[in-house]
Amino acid sequence: MNASIPSNAIKRLTLYHHILSDCLLKGNEYISSQHIAELLKIDDSQVRKDIALCAASGKTKVGYAVLELKKAIERLLGFREQKAAFIIGAGNLGSALAKHTDFQDYGLDIVALFDNDPTKIDTFINGKKIYPLPKLYQVATHENLVNKRKVEIALLTVPAAAAQKSAELLTQSQIKYIWNFTPTILSVPDNVRVCNENLVGNFLDFTNN
Amino acid sequence: MNASIPSNAIKRLTLYHHILSDCLLKGNEYISSQHIAELLKIDDSQVRKDIALCAASGKTKVGYAVLELKKAIERLLGFREQKAAFIIGAGNLGSALAKHTDFQDYGLDIVALFDNDPTKIDTFINGKKIYPLPKLYQVATHENLVNKRKVEIALLTVPAAAAQKSAELLTQSQIKYIWNFTPTILSVPDNVRVCNENLVGNFLDFTNN
Repeated sequence: MNASIPSNAIKRLTLYHHILSDCLLKGNEYISSQHIAELLKIDDSQVRKDIALCAASGKTKVGYAVLELKKAIERLLGFREQKAAFIIGAGNLGSALAKHTDFQDYGLDIVALFDNDPTKIDTFINGKKIYPLPKLYQVATHENLVNKRKVEIALLTVPAAAAQKSAELLTQSQIKYIWNFTPTILSVPDNVRVCNENLVGNFLDFTNN
Repeated sequence: MNASIPSNAIKRLTLYHHILSDCLLKGNEYISSQHIAELLKIDDSQVRKDIALCAASGKTKVGYAVLELKKAIERLLGFREQKAAFIIGAGNLGSALAKHTDFQDYGLDIVALFDNDPTKIDTFINGKKIYPLPKLYQVATHENLVNKRKVEIALLTVPAAAAQKSAELLTQSQIKYIWNFTPTILSVPDNVRVCNENLVGNFLDFTNN
């Protein structure tokens, strides 16, 4: 993906992509920037500016060809380069994320989960196996265990008290990106990137504006 | 809360708040902007700029008083004004959100859940009762049913196919804010605000930068 796309444009483009998928389901072949803008209650000029990043162009009075625009967004945002990921913590949130069908469409392929609960080990969620957490290093570094693919991304959904210890295990297991759904601020080496999924911040921003 | 605070500053301030809570647990009375910046791998000057929004000031060589700064952030972001909310959909994600202890600390009080699964009705998650979804209007408009409090916020976690219908039920039930965790773009009247919780967008932004 092109690293020069601003964060907010990426987020809006994924929402346009949702809308376009919905159009295809309904059999609509064209959509106008005005229609997208109305659905998201944002400015029409913003929509056109974002779409221009994909080098897609609309036709006067008809709008954008839905399928073409959808593919252009996918190319721009790199949805087609599948990246394998682990989920650490198979509780409610971990399970919900493992079932999140959207991820696969957008290039994130959850290949396995890890948990400490013996009753969960060797069971499956949405076709993905749950391994014992202490085996993380072994599973992560023996590529043949999980589809022979290198896994560099982990979604961390363990309880807050277990977060730092899990992050250390991830670091030892050659994970490079930790998507942190816990409220704990993790301390990791400089070569590991943490994205704090800050639901509370999103909520405050929402009710504030 | 002060409506002039930029979205990104709100998100960073909630992360600083996480760090300060952790400091208090560890018995640390002071923290420097450099330390916060290092933990989040952001720029020190950014941290000082954000903290200046709270009108909190640090002491040379000692840093900020943790408890004082924590309270200043709470005042600035309005964490102490509790807002009541419903969760629509008591599946994995709804259950995870109902158990999310952070929300209450940040002013979001989940008072009830709604679902269509008869085996879930009248059960409790984290002390919160699950009501039948068709009773939403009745529960929402008879304030005495739920702590005699007016509820204007709903977290929507139903399957995508049920999202629009649920949004219509929410609109009829006088909900003003829908925090949409489904991938469906909702069509709602102008007096209802929708916040699309765009996990996929967050992920793409994360692995892109």
